[in-house]
Amino acid sequence: MTKNTFTSVVDESSSSGKVQIVYDDIKKTLGIDFIPNMYKAMALNPDYLELTWNRVQSIMTKEGKLDKQTKDIIALTVSIMSGSRYCIDVYNETARNEGLDDEAITEIYAIIDIYSGLNRFNIAQQTQKDEKPWYGCGG
Amino acid sequence: MTKNTFTSVVDESSSSGKVQIVYDDIKKTLGIDFIPNMYKAMALNPDYLELTWNRVQSIMTKEGKLDKQTKDIIALTVSIMSGSRYCIDVYNETARNEGLDDEAITEIYAIIDIYSGLNRFNIAQQTQKDEKPWYGCGG
Amino acid sequence: MTKNTFTSVVDESSSSGKVQIVYDDIKKTLGIDFIPNMYKAMALNPDYLELTWNRVQSIMTKEGKLDKQTKDIIALTVSIMSGSRYCIDVYNETARNEGLDDEAITEIYAIIDIYSGLNRFNIAQQTQKDEKPWYGCGG
Amino acid sequence: MTKNTFTSVVDESSSSGKVQIVYDDIKKTLGIDFIPNMYKAMALNPDYLELTWNRVQSIMTKEGKLDKQTKDIIALTVSIMSGSRYCIDVYNETARNEGLDDEAITEIYAIIDIYSGLNRFNIAQQTQKDEKPWYGCGG
Amino acid sequence: MTKNTFTSVVDESSSSGKVQIVYDDIKKTLGIDFIPNMYKAMALNPDYLELTWNRVQSIMTKEGKLDKQTKDIIALTVSIMSGSRYCIDVYNETARNEGLDDEAITEIYAIIDIYSGLNRFNIAQQTQKDEKPWYGCGG
Amino acid sequence: MTKNTFTSVVDESSSSGKVQIVYDDIKKTLGIDFIPNMYKAMALNPDYLELTWNRVQSIMTKEGKLDKQTKDIIALTVSIMSGSRYCIDVYNETARNEGLDDEAITEIYAIIDIYSGLNRFNIAQQTQKDEKPWYGCGG
Repeated sequence: MTKNTFTSVVDESSSSGKVQIVYDDIKKTLGIDFIPNMYKAMALNPDYLELTWNRVQSIMTKEGKLDKQTKDIIALTVSIMSGSRYCIDVYNETARNEGLDDEAITEIYAIIDIYSGLNRFNIAQQTQKDEKPWYGCGG
Repeated sequence: MTKNTFTSVVDESSSSGKVQIVYDDIKKTLGIDFIPNMYKAMALNPDYLELTWNRVQSIMTKEGKLDKQTKDIIALTVSIMSGSRYCIDVYNETARNEGLDDEAITEIYAIIDIYSGLNRFNIAQQTQKDEKPWYGCGG
Repeated sequence: MTKNTFTSVVDESSSSGKVQIVYDDIKKTLGIDFIPNMYKAMALNPDYLELTWNRVQSIMTKEGKLDKQTKDIIALTVSIMSGSRYCIDVYNETARNEGLDDEAITEIYAIIDIYSGLNRFNIAQQTQKDEKPWYGCGG
Repeated sequence: MTKNTFTSVVDESSSSGKVQIVYDDIKKTLGIDFIPNMYKAMALNPDYLELTWNRVQSIMTKEGKLDKQTKDIIALTVSIMSGSRYCIDVYNETARNEGLDDEAITEIYAIIDIYSGLNRFNIAQQTQKDEKPWYGCGG
Repeated sequence: MTKNTFTSVVDESSSSGKVQIVYDDIKKTLGIDFIPNMYKAMALNPDYLELTWNRVQSIMTKEGKLDKQTKDIIALTVSIMSGSRYCIDVYNETARNEGLDDEAITEIYAIIDIYSGLNRFNIAQQTQKDEKPWYGCGG
Repeated sequence: MTKNTFTSVVDESSSSGKVQIVYDDIKKTLGIDFIPNMYKAMALNPDYLELTWNRVQSIMTKEGKLDKQTKDIIALTVSIMSGSRYCIDVYNETARNEGLDDEAITEIYAIIDIYSGLNRFNIAQQTQKDEKPWYGCGG
């Protein structure tokens, strides 16, 4: 048997109560006809599933200060820095679905490359704060 | 003596040749009247300083696919994920200078919190790719 | 040829001296009839193998302050945070062998998700220590 | 002015509505008479504060599969692996408040030392899964 | 279709201008008759490809303070700490090509194991600087 | 009271038995007249102190395949990638004591900068192995 996650998961056919309600909301909100492996794995603890889903929705879907594309680019960047292949895959698909093409994706990766390097240089040097502020790459 | 970096640095008064040219370009491009500690530390290897500065400029300042604010938000996110205090400080200042207020900054941090957690959950589960694509938080 | 590790390994049939002694101790202590790939790779440097094995045993097997299950949960948590698939696999098997079921494992993963997120939020904010102590989630 | 976080925070005196309700719940649940800097920073986005607090409570305080001390040890381990000084401080205090003494804390740190090393060795080797399962340090 | 990278790549047959010049330099400098996947992916942004390649060459190939083998060992160590399987593969091949045998590679991995552990212990303890300097492992 | 580590430590004046023996060996081997904070913190668990010290000595001090300076450069690189300020300080002192000057240190940092960036780019791209081997930066 191939397993999609370490723990067993709650399939839609066997979901009930709180899990079923969240599953229905996931499919409706995301416009899909299946439950992603990640959420199926969370459903072993229905409160964890519900509270995680609601929190994600509140920050990512509800109107806030940042536009949707910027939010998805932050999620992609965090995924690349954290290194979960599953999340990198999902947010790569998401970025393309948002309209970002290969050139834009390459630009995101180039920025991640550059600042991963510069951060490590400054950790090495334990660089102290400058006496006056400056603004990254100016204006 | 308090040191701003582990290695000694090349102060403006003693810069010459390639270093002086880059220093002048840094001040002009960033609209500041000093050289940040990070670049002063790089100047011990003038080629490294020049090639790093040009590469940063090419990706961050030159017109590309993403707007300037989005690029700076990616740089801030990478800095928070990498953990260099110096870079976090610089890009926090940069984000504010770009017009992002406390609510917008908190939104960025909330997204970083959420996806740092979800990535780790999926690393724990070694979650396998879903058979059909889905797009993060829909919408 | 499929390789199990980058370097060649010391198979049981060709082990001798110090390596053979440690191999015998590994099989006896762990109650298995093979040498795990990790230890076979270390055996290229017999002192490294012996000193690593003895150190692991001293902390993990010898009676200490924490019970065996708690120690294994810490090892699983460190493996998930470090990201070695090999170690995640081994400690997932270990946790189940210790009697932890899918619900318990999900609880561990949920805590890891939550605190990976909160740590990152506080790195972003460079949050300063509170003037008075407080105790996580009380109780 | 010394700032405790990068963003401004919502002090108790100026809290209202949802924030005030959560603040009261935090003080009551944790048995403290102040709001930790972390939660004050989150309050700039009241939904984020509320949803994060409820999720933390649900996993950490509600009766689950693991006892309270084990949960706190996982939170401490994640904090050390993530590297937020604020969280390390809070969970160090928590562990001591739970009754763990210096010897027990040292044992936790020793396990973290050992498995941080072994994980990195196996990432270096890209060690493949053994054909048969084995259980960490046996016993 | 199997993809070697997330984004599409610029194959040699369709390269032109700046990309073609860098591609020719890569093949000549590295003594190979193909373009590695990493550089093909960068070529979607020709400036990024050129500036990255030149910077890598300047530090790694140009005569500096450290000998070539030491530089390659640093690159291997960074790759293992960062966790990109692609880079670990390339620098493992490089180390062997430099003349390092299985025993030498195991020694590198042992040092990485030891210091990954000790660093984490000192992050846990937030160990303060000693009043007098000392030099690692003496000698 | 300022604490040098989270846990209390075993001062030389109160050391005895196994701890005293290791303390004497540390001072003699490293040529110093004090016990570094790191080892004093480990001494709360005498077996952990002894086994860690012996393992470090075996890999770092005993004649092996790599020369002493290369070993120390690997330890410095791991420390910078792991981010313990204590270890970065110790290995920075060590590198200078080994005869590395500011230019050489800057070269190490430049390599760490470059490969931290490239690793992250390849994690983003999930770059697949090339069909033929290549050797980093040729030469």
